[in-house]
Amino acid sequence: RLREKFALLHPADIAFILESLPLDQRKAAWDAIKADQDGQVLLEVSDAVRHSLISGMAADELASVAGNLDADELADLAADLPKRAMLRILRSLNSTERTHLNAILSYEDDEVGALMDFGMITIRDDMSLKAISSYIRKLGKLPSHTDKLFVVDGHNRVKGVLPLQRLLTHAPSLHVAEVMVTDFVVFQTDQDTGEASRAFERYDLISAPVVDQNGELQGRLCVDSIMDFIREKSDEDLLSQAGVTEEEDLFASVWKSAKNRWGWLLINVATAFASTRIIGLYEDVILQLVALASLMPIVAAMGGNTGNQTSMLIIRSLALGQITAANVQRLIRKELTLAALNGTFIGLIMGLLGFLLYHDLALAGVMATAMFINLLVAVIVGLSIPLLRYKFGKDPAVGTSVILTSITDSMGFFIVLGLASLFLLGK
Amino acid sequence: RLREKFALLHPADIAFILESLPLDQRKAAWDAIKADQDGQVLLEVSDAVRHSLISGMAADELASVAGNLDADELADLAADLPKRAMLRILRSLNSTERTHLNAILSYEDDEVGALMDFGMITIRDDMSLKAISSYIRKLGKLPSHTDKLFVVDGHNRVKGVLPLQRLLTHAPSLHVAEVMVTDFVVFQTDQDTGEASRAFERYDLISAPVVDQNGELQGRLCVDSIMDFIREKSDEDLLSQAGVTEEEDLFASVWKSAKNRWGWLLINVATAFASTRIIGLYEDVILQLVALASLMPIVAAMGGNTGNQTSMLIIRSLALGQITAANVQRLIRKELTLAALNGTFIGLIMGLLGFLLYHDLALAGVMATAMFINLLVAVIVGLSIPLLRYKFGKDPAVGTSVILTSITDSMGFFIVLGLASLFLLGK
Ligand SMILES: [Mg+2]
Ligand SMILES: [Mg+2]
Ligand SMILES: [Mg+2]
Ligand SMILES: [Mg+2]
Ligand SMILES: [Mg+2]
Ligand SMILES: [Mg+2]
Ligand SMILES: [Mg+2]
Ligand SMILES: [Mg+2]
Ligand SMILES: [Mg+2]
Ligand SMILES: [Mg+2]
Ligand SMILES: [Mg+2]
Ligand SMILES: [Mg+2]
Ligand SMILES: [Mg+2]
Repeated sequence: RLREKFALLHPADIAFILESLPLDQRKAAWDAIKADQDGQVLLEVSDAVRHSLISGMAADELASVAGNLDADELADLAADLPKRAMLRILRSLNSTERTHLNAILSYEDDEVGALMDFGMITIRDDMSLKAISSYIRKLGKLPSHTDKLFVVDGHNRVKGVLPLQRLLTHAPSLHVAEVMVTDFVVFQTDQDTGEASRAFERYDLISAPVVDQNGELQGRLCVDSIMDFIREKSDEDLLSQAGVTEEEDLFASVWKSAKNRWGWLLINVATAFASTRIIGLYEDVILQLVALASLMPIVAAMGGNTGNQTSMLIIRSLALGQITAANVQRLIRKELTLAALNGTFIGLIMGLLGFLLYHDLALAGVMATAMFINLLVAVIVGLSIPLLRYKFGKDPAVGTSVILTSITDSMGFFIVLGLASLFLLGK
Repeated sequence: RLREKFALLHPADIAFILESLPLDQRKAAWDAIKADQDGQVLLEVSDAVRHSLISGMAADELASVAGNLDADELADLAADLPKRAMLRILRSLNSTERTHLNAILSYEDDEVGALMDFGMITIRDDMSLKAISSYIRKLGKLPSHTDKLFVVDGHNRVKGVLPLQRLLTHAPSLHVAEVMVTDFVVFQTDQDTGEASRAFERYDLISAPVVDQNGELQGRLCVDSIMDFIREKSDEDLLSQAGVTEEEDLFASVWKSAKNRWGWLLINVATAFASTRIIGLYEDVILQLVALASLMPIVAAMGGNTGNQTSMLIIRSLALGQITAANVQRLIRKELTLAALNGTFIGLIMGLLGFLLYHDLALAGVMATAMFINLLVAVIVGLSIPLLRYKFGKDPAVGTSVILTSITDSMGFFIVLGLASLFLLGK
């Protein structure tokens, strides 16, 4: 009964159901799914849930599941399959499929080649539209997302594209060369996928040819893969802000989840200990003016908040490619001016509230000054970390917030306690 | 010369260039752009940059720009146009266009109706494929993203869809009714756009019909609008984590940027003051045991980190619709177990480091216990805020991290100082 119900569902819906089931029920449901849907479901579930499904399957079971998949789909699963199953699958492929699979696997995760498929229809430019139409009718079925045919020459180089809409609206007697579009978007196999995804968004693409360095057609990139890429990337960015490094199976064992989260927590314990050592060094200052104990965490925290605003905007602008050598100077000047403004504003509030609480004008002045300086430091750090990481070819988002917070915390404590020991003690 | 260069570019590329130009150069470039591209460029730039461009244009200039746009595109601009320009534009529209524009504007921002366009081609099911083909040829041009035609009955209700690929692969003598797909995805005008975007991802859609409550065809939803929606939403989520409420023009005046960021900073100053008041209440405890001043910020900070991991995972799972009444209990149990494990682990580290620094076993024990309790509190809060906000129909992501941090900070200080005054003082 369960099996019949599942047979009516789209693989993506089955995947969704499996993801929201606890492990034991998930296993039972997975056993009930018809074998010929298995592969598509494995493709649609999240990485974490895929592990939980694959871990319970034998190598020959996996090999038969993979039998229904295309080379590009196999490539998506490859990293998650045990070696034995993978070897068995490779042996069962014909030579074209094996070439395709090896081609995709030879590219880095962030290169266009890793995301391409081979569902392109190629035509020659000396054919008539009538001939193209009967060719398509003979094929009987077009790969999904076929919105255009790729026009290639004798060396498999792309000379143009023929959108189906032109095929449908032009006279059948015309030739491809007269109707094809020669001003089209094409991607390189080793191009950055983020760049390709921005091109899909800008030019509203559905599919586009992918070529190698010689301009020879290697495959095709489609909007559905790009959407999956965008979603995965943005989920990663969001979760990594909270220090969750990997997608997590909601129902993974507690141990697995713990391992996924401890790395970040350990880093944070270490930086928190390091930055609070500053306080340890100034314990005598606190004993003489205990108000500092409750006021200095505010200065430290506001530094983190301000710096994060700056770094987040810089990280996003870098991701969109909006920061150039020509405008970066101007941008830095603007953020620094803003920091001075913020520092004055928040500094005045800090001073005012400090005075209201402790009725000590000198203390209020020191707190206001400390806040002003720390916000300036925060913005300089919030600008520098992502810009420097980017300049040295690293992902500007990774780790920025931990480094930033540890600097703004230490500096916050240091500035408050340092200024206090200079101007407030022994009055 | 600049004008000629711009004329060769795609509007999205012009938009990108304008976004990375400082205000004065941007204005000069904008003046150089050919009038018939203006509208498309305005659609492609970010909200913030659009304001900067529109603010320098007269009402009649804007009205003539809008003349080249479709109703759905006008709707995208409507919120940003001055009233005078909008009235002028409304007067210039014919009655169909005005009906379309009013239709789109009548939906909420997060409803499918606000994102639809009117580029659908409708056909009847008693036509032959041959007739359809010559109808298309007569149209001369298909709207972009036309991958299927919508089959409607006499009451404009959608009975099926005819993918172009079926039109191309089936015999011309067949009738639409024999070839059309009746198991298709359809959206309601008042459906949530987030839901629709997940359907586009799951079913790999390019376009889909949008109907009202009576099942009558109202418009069409296309993958390019969905991609823009996903990008905008994920950028918002990421920036709002850092308290930047709106997309920001990199080159906006300092005052504008300041206004965009002060709200968040003020909220944070207020919560930081509130949570550190706890410390103010226990100043005598700190005077007796000054080590607490440097140790308690660690307990507070780790609570924030742990709670954020939990809340982020819950927020993301809620967004994906993976949390149901059936599995929420299990999930809560799992996160609490994990919290106990994390608390023990990080608590032991805290105790150990505390002992190494101050050689005081009782102090170390209190710090370890405080860490354990605060991590438990953090996870409970990290679970409760998003789940409760969701239950009461609010966006679970908004404000969660500020509330969470202020609670984990106050509780961290309170637990450390409370335990210390109970067990460590007057030894
Ligand atoms: Mg993957
Ligand atoms: Mg792939
Ligand atoms: Mg595919
Ligand atoms: Mg677009
Ligand atoms: Mg567009
Ligand atoms: Mg991943
Ligand atoms: Mg903090
Ligand atoms: Mg907008
Ligand atoms: Mg709209
Ligand atoms: Mg449109
Ligand atoms: Mg998909
Ligand atoms: Mg798919
Ligand atoms: Mg927005």
